[in-house]
Amino acid sequence: MIQSELTTQNPKIYIFLPLYYTLWADSVLTPLEIEEMKSLISRQKWINPIEKNMLIEHLNPALPPKPKLLKSWKKEIKNLEISADSGLTSIGLKLVEKYDPDAKFSEAEIKDFHHTELALGLLGKEAGYAFRTGHDTITTSHVSDSSFDVAEMIALLDGDQQKIIQKVKKIISDPSFAYREYESLSDQREQVLAWCKVLSDHGLGAWAFPKFAGGKDDMKGYFTIMETLSYHDLSLVIKFGVQFGLWGMSVFFLGTDKHHKKYLKDIGSLELPGCFAMTETGHGSNVRGLETTATYDHRAGTFTIHTPNPDARKEYIGNAAVHGQMATVFAKLIIDGEDFGVNAFIVPLRDQEGNLVKGVQIEDCGRKMGLNGVDNGVIYFDNVVIPKDQMLDRFSTVNDEGEFESEISSDNRRFFTMLGTLVGGRIGIPRSALSAAKTGLTIAIRHGEKRKQFGPEGGAEVPILNYRMHQRRLMPPLAASYALHFGLRYLTKRFLERTEEEAQEIEALAAGMKAYTTWFATATLQECREACGGKGYLSENRIDALKNDTDVYTTFEGDNVVLMQLVAKNRLTEFRQEFGDMNMFTIFNYVVSQAKTSLSEKNPLIIRSTDQAHLLDMDFHLSAFKYRERAILASAAQRIKKHIDEGMDSFDAFNVVQHHLLNVGQAYIERIILEEFQKEIIATPNYGVKTALTQLCQLFALHTIEKNRGWYLEQGYMEGVKTKAIRKEVNQLCWEIRKNALALTASFGIPESCIAAPIAKI
Amino acid sequence: MIQSELTTQNPKIYIFLPLYYTLWADSVLTPLEIEEMKSLISRQKWINPIEKNMLIEHLNPALPPKPKLLKSWKKEIKNLEISADSGLTSIGLKLVEKYDPDAKFSEAEIKDFHHTELALGLLGKEAGYAFRTGHDTITTSHVSDSSFDVAEMIALLDGDQQKIIQKVKKIISDPSFAYREYESLSDQREQVLAWCKVLSDHGLGAWAFPKFAGGKDDMKGYFTIMETLSYHDLSLVIKFGVQFGLWGMSVFFLGTDKHHKKYLKDIGSLELPGCFAMTETGHGSNVRGLETTATYDHRAGTFTIHTPNPDARKEYIGNAAVHGQMATVFAKLIIDGEDFGVNAFIVPLRDQEGNLVKGVQIEDCGRKMGLNGVDNGVIYFDNVVIPKDQMLDRFSTVNDEGEFESEISSDNRRFFTMLGTLVGGRIGIPRSALSAAKTGLTIAIRHGEKRKQFGPEGGAEVPILNYRMHQRRLMPPLAASYALHFGLRYLTKRFLERTEEEAQEIEALAAGMKAYTTWFATATLQECREACGGKGYLSENRIDALKNDTDVYTTFEGDNVVLMQLVAKNRLTEFRQEFGDMNMFTIFNYVVSQAKTSLSEKNPLIIRSTDQAHLLDMDFHLSAFKYRERAILASAAQRIKKHIDEGMDSFDAFNVVQHHLLNVGQAYIERIILEEFQKEIIATPNYGVKTALTQLCQLFALHTIEKNRGWYLEQGYMEGVKTKAIRKEVNQLCWEIRKNALALTASFGIPESCIAAPIAKI
Repeated sequence: MIQSELTTQNPKIYIFLPLYYTLWADSVLTPLEIEEMKSLISRQKWINPIEKNMLIEHLNPALPPKPKLLKSWKKEIKNLEISADSGLTSIGLKLVEKYDPDAKFSEAEIKDFHHTELALGLLGKEAGYAFRTGHDTITTSHVSDSSFDVAEMIALLDGDQQKIIQKVKKIISDPSFAYREYESLSDQREQVLAWCKVLSDHGLGAWAFPKFAGGKDDMKGYFTIMETLSYHDLSLVIKFGVQFGLWGMSVFFLGTDKHHKKYLKDIGSLELPGCFAMTETGHGSNVRGLETTATYDHRAGTFTIHTPNPDARKEYIGNAAVHGQMATVFAKLIIDGEDFGVNAFIVPLRDQEGNLVKGVQIEDCGRKMGLNGVDNGVIYFDNVVIPKDQMLDRFSTVNDEGEFESEISSDNRRFFTMLGTLVGGRIGIPRSALSAAKTGLTIAIRHGEKRKQFGPEGGAEVPILNYRMHQRRLMPPLAASYALHFGLRYLTKRFLERTEEEAQEIEALAAGMKAYTTWFATATLQECREACGGKGYLSENRIDALKNDTDVYTTFEGDNVVLMQLVAKNRLTEFRQEFGDMNMFTIFNYVVSQAKTSLSEKNPLIIRSTDQAHLLDMDFHLSAFKYRERAILASAAQRIKKHIDEGMDSFDAFNVVQHHLLNVGQAYIERIILEEFQKEIIATPNYGVKTALTQLCQLFALHTIEKNRGWYLEQGYMEGVKTKAIRKEVNQLCWEIRKNALALTASFGIPESCIAAPIAKI
Repeated sequence: MIQSELTTQNPKIYIFLPLYYTLWADSVLTPLEIEEMKSLISRQKWINPIEKNMLIEHLNPALPPKPKLLKSWKKEIKNLEISADSGLTSIGLKLVEKYDPDAKFSEAEIKDFHHTELALGLLGKEAGYAFRTGHDTITTSHVSDSSFDVAEMIALLDGDQQKIIQKVKKIISDPSFAYREYESLSDQREQVLAWCKVLSDHGLGAWAFPKFAGGKDDMKGYFTIMETLSYHDLSLVIKFGVQFGLWGMSVFFLGTDKHHKKYLKDIGSLELPGCFAMTETGHGSNVRGLETTATYDHRAGTFTIHTPNPDARKEYIGNAAVHGQMATVFAKLIIDGEDFGVNAFIVPLRDQEGNLVKGVQIEDCGRKMGLNGVDNGVIYFDNVVIPKDQMLDRFSTVNDEGEFESEISSDNRRFFTMLGTLVGGRIGIPRSALSAAKTGLTIAIRHGEKRKQFGPEGGAEVPILNYRMHQRRLMPPLAASYALHFGLRYLTKRFLERTEEEAQEIEALAAGMKAYTTWFATATLQECREACGGKGYLSENRIDALKNDTDVYTTFEGDNVVLMQLVAKNRLTEFRQEFGDMNMFTIFNYVVSQAKTSLSEKNPLIIRSTDQAHLLDMDFHLSAFKYRERAILASAAQRIKKHIDEGMDSFDAFNVVQHHLLNVGQAYIERIILEEFQKEIIATPNYGVKTALTQLCQLFALHTIEKNRGWYLEQGYMEGVKTKAIRKEVNQLCWEIRKNALALTASFGIPESCIAAPIAKI
C-alpha cells in the first residue's frame, strides 16, 4: 500500500504504516492480530470504503507484502526524525504530518490507536526502535574501568615471593619456551625434559634442597616456583614436580645423610632423573594395601624387590616410561618371612644409556587425556636385588643383626608418618591448579570483553561479558580464585611452620584444600571453555590443554572424594583433642547439644533480613560459614552415633553418611578460605586494592551461601526472602566486578607469552 | 611385655594385651590415654608391684614397643577363636583363659575394664575386628543382581528402530572399525573419511533422502543412525552429520527439485563431499548479523560471493579444511545495492582433485580439544562467481526480471524459517550426546563393580560402586540417561509429525532438549572420568575421547545459554497463543494471579510430608515439576514487566533476568522429560522392566527436586523436613539401583567393540 499500490489522496492513512510494518516484519500474522486490526479500521469514520478495502486486503496472510515493499515502508519511516520514546502511533502521526501538516486526529481517535498498539502487545517505545538508528541501553554502555592500581594488587598477591616469581617468569617467557605443536608423544616428552633441564640449570630444581646439594634450602620458594611454572605448561610442572618434588623429596625426607650426600645434587641438577613408585594397579587410594615386596637377605646384605602379581605392578609412574634411571619404590619389607609394612627403597631402573636394569620391565602408559609431556609408565620388578643401604631409613631400618628397628611401633602409623612428610605435594598441586584456573579466566574474560554478539534492536552489538549469564559464569570463579590465592598462602605458611602436634590437622587442611581447589579448577576451566564458544574449543586458545592437563589433579595426590572423607574424619576426631577427657560418646553428646544451642541463637529478625548492609557484612558471612561448619559436623556425628547405637557396623555407618561427610569437609575448607581472605583484606592498607578485594570477598561469600542455600533454608538459618535477596546481591556484585574484571586478571601477572591464546590478545 | 620381656607368673595380665595392642597400633599415645590406663592399672588389686611397674613402663611414649613385639601381640591374640561381637575386654578374658582356665575376675573388675574401653573411645566389637579374619558388613555384601530381563529392556529402548540399530551396530563392530592410535591429524581425518565412505556404501548416508537419490525417505531412521554411530567414534558421527545432515539436508530442505536432482545422489554416496558454511568469525550465535555477501548480476545471471572483511570469514566449517568440494554458503543477498537478508547458495570450493577454486582461500582450524577426525576450516571468498541457479530457492528466489521474490515478506522471518527447516541438528546432537554419556556410564559402572578399594578392618576390600558417594556420582546420571532416552524419543516424534502451527514450539523444545542433554553429557562424562580415577585418565579407556569430542556439543548447533534464553522467550510468548485475546499486559497479570492461586493451593500437610509412599509417588513428582515450571515462568514474566513498567529498556530488562530465564527453560524441559518418562512406564506391560524403570524415574524426579530444593524451600512448596527426607530417598534409591546398574548399562546394548576400554572388560 502507499506509494506503490494505492493512489490514495488521503495522507492520514499513513498513520497505519508503522503498525503494518511491525506486524508483517516481526512474525506471522495471527487471526487475532487480524481481528484487532480489522476492528480498528472499521472504527475509523474518516476512511472511505475503497481505502478500507485496501487496508483490509493488506492483512491477508495469503497475500503478504512483497519483501521490497516491506523494505520501502521501513525506509519511509526511517527518513523521519523519531524521538527516543516514540511509540508506533506517534510515529504514524509524524508520518501523516510530513505529507499533510494540516491533517488532524481527534483525541479519541488517537486513544483508539494507542489501545490497539497495546492490545497487539507492541510495547510503547520498544516497538519504535526498529525505525531508529542507535539504541543505547544500560547493557550496551557498561564498560571496563579499573578502580584500583594493578601494580599494588600484584605486589599484594606476590608478597615476599616477588623475586623468585620474577626469575621464573623471565625464564618461561624466553622464546625457547614458546608453545609449539608436537609431532609425536616422544617429541613432546623430549621438549618437556629439555625445558626441565633449563630450569634445573637455573637452580630451580634444587631450590628446596640443602645448600650442599646446590639448593637454597627454601621450600617456600619451591612452592612458588611450581605455582609460577604452572602459567606455562602443566606437563612441565608435573615433570618438574615428579623429578624434584616426588623423587627428590622422597630421598630428602625419607632418606638419611648417606642418601642426601649421594643423590640430592644429581637429582637437583637433573643428572639423575628418577621416579616415585608408590601407586600400584590394585592399590591407588588404599595405598597401605600395596603388595610389592622387599625381602631382606641378611647374609648378602641386600633387599630383593619383587612384583608378586600383575595387580602389584607400579602404575602411572611419572618419568618411568622413558627418562627415569632410579625410583623410590614403596614395598612391604619382609624379614624372615615376617611382614614389617610398607617401607621405601631406592631402586635402579636404567643405566645412563637408558638400558633397563636386569629384572626391571617397563611399559608405557601411552596417551592420556592430558599431561602427555610426562612419560608415565608401568613397572614390574622381577627379583631386583639392591644393597642394604638403599633403604630410605629415616623412620625405620634394619640393624646390623638383621632386625627391623623403628621408633614407631605400628606399621600403619609408620607408613602414614612417612606419607605425612610428603604432604607438600598436596600444596604444590592446588597451587598449580589455581594458576591454570587463573590463566583460563584471563583468556575467557579478555574474550568476553572483546567478543560482541547481539544487541538491542537498532543498537550496537554488546560485549558478551555484559550479559548477566556470562558474568554469572566468570565472576564467581574470579572471586574464588582470589579467595583461594589467600587460602593457599595460609596453607603454605601453616605447613612450613608446622609443629609435630599440628601435623595431622595440617595434613587434613592440605587434603581439603587440594580437593577443593582442584575441583574448582576443573569446574572453572569447563566454564571458560564454554564461555569462549567455538574459539574455546580450538587448541590454539589453550583452554584445551589447561582443562585436560589439570583434569587428573582431582585424582592424583589422592582422589578428591577420598581426601574429603579424610578431612571429615579428622574434623570428627579434632573434637577429641579439643575437649580433653571426653570420650567419643561424650563428644557426640556435646556436639549435638552445641548444635541445639546454635539453633536457638538464630534471631528471627536476622533470618529474614534483606538489608543490603547486612547482606554485604563480613561478620554475617563468617558467622554463616561457621554456623554451617559446626552444624553440619555435629549432625554428621549425630547420625553416625545413631547408626552405631542401633547396632550398625561403623564401616557401614560411615558409608551411609558419606555424602554428608563430603559436605563436612567442604564447609570446613570454605570457612578457612573465607576467614583468611577477610584477614588479608583487613590487613591491606591500600584503599583501592582493599575495596576491590572486599567486593570479591563479598561475592565469594554470598555465592557460596547461595550455592548452599538449600541447606540454610532447611536449617531455618535463613528464610526465602533472605536467600532471594542474596541471589540479587550476587547478580549485582557480578555486574559491578565485571568492570574490574580485566584489571583483576591483569593482576595475576601472567606472562603474555604464557597466555598465548589468539582470542586473548589485547 | 609378655612372652618376651617379662617372666610373669600371672596369666591374668593377658587381659591387658588387646588394649595395649590397640592403643599402640592405632595412633600416638596421648597423655589422656596414658592417664586412663594408669588409673585402670592402679585399681587392680590382683597385680603385684613389679607387674604394675612393667605395665606402666609399657605406656611410656618415649619407649614404644618394638615393631616385632607389637606384631607378636597381635599374633598371640589372632591365634584365639574370637566371636563376631567380642570387644577388647572379652578378647582379653579369652586370652587369660587360654593360659589359665581357672583364672577368675570379679564382675566389678570386668566392668572396670569395660568402662576403660569406652572411655578410650574403643567401641565394642569394632575394636575387636583387628584380631579377626573376615569382617562382613552390609557394604561388603551388596552385589549386582538384575531384577529384570535385559532383552526386554533393550526391546523397549530400541522400539521400532531395532532393525536399523542392528544394521549400524553390525557395521561398526566390524574389525575395520577397531579403534587405533593415529600418527597425525591427517591420518585421523583420512580414517574417519574412509569409515564415512563405508557407511555411505551401506546406504546410511542417503537414508533420509528421497528414493530417487538412493535414500529411504526415512528421517526417523537417520536420527537412529546418528545415535547408534555415536557409540563408536564421535568424529565419525560429526563428519557424517556434516556431510549428510548439514550439507545434504541444506540442499534438500532449502533447495528445490533442480538441486535435489543434481546433487542429492552424489551427496548421499559421498561422491560429493561438502560443507555447511554459516557461522562467521564475527557472528556465531547471532547468525542473522553475518556479513558475507552474494551480489546479484542480472546481466550475467550470476551471484558473486564475497567476504567483505576478515570477521566475515566462515569459521569452524566441517569438511572445509581438506575434503569439501562444495558448500552451502549463507550470505546476504544484494540486488541493485539493496540488502535482502541472508539467503543460501551452493558454492564450489575445490575440484575433484582437491585444488581450490579461484577466489576461495581456506585455512585449517588445526587441532581442537576433540573431534580431530573432522577437518574444520576457515573459508574466505574473494568475489567467487556462481550461476544464478545455485541459489537454494525454496523460500526465496530472484525472478526472471531480476527481482527478489519470496512469500515471506520479512528478511528476518524468512531467515529463521530457513533455519527452522534445519532444526534436525538439534535432535541429532543431543541423541549423539546421550549415546556418549551412556558409553561413559557403562565404562565407569563396570569399573566401579570390578574395582575394589578399602574395606572394613580385617575384611575384604569393597567394590567402589558400593560406596555411597560413588553411587551418588553414577546412579543419578544413569537414571537421567533413561529419562532423556524417552524425552528425546518424544522430541523426535514431535518433530517428525509437526504441523506448521507447532513449528515454533517444537523448535524451542529441540533447543531446550539440545542444551539440557549436552550439558548433561558434559557433566556426566566428567563424573565418569573422575570416578575411574587414574584409569579414567588413560586414553585407552575412552573417557578422554568421549568427554573431549562431545565438549563442543554445548556450543555448536547453538550455544546452550543462548538456546535456553530462546526457550524461555518462547515459553513467555506461548501464553499469548494459549490465552487468545489477552494482550501482553493481561497475560502478565494472568500469570501473576495464577502463581498466587498455586501458592494458596499448597497443603500444609503435604509440604512437610515425609511419608515414603508420598515421596515416591509419580503424581507428587509431576505436580512438583509442573508447579516449578509454572511459578518460575510467572515470576520471570512478573519481573520483566516490573522492570519495563519502571521505565527500563526491554533489552536491559531481559538481561537483568537472564539467569532466571535459564531456569525457566530448564524447568520446562525437566517437566517434559519427566512427563514422557512416566507415560512410557505406564505403557510398559513387562513387570520387571516397569519396576526397574519406575525406580529410575523416581530417582530422576527426586534428584531433580533435590537439586532445586533451595527454590522449593524459598517458595514454601516444601519444608526442610521434606527436602531432608527426599535426600534420604535419593540415597536409598541409589543404593537399590546400584544392584541393577550392570544390567541397566547392558540394556543400552552398546557393542563391546565400541566400549573397548580395558577397564570395562567383563
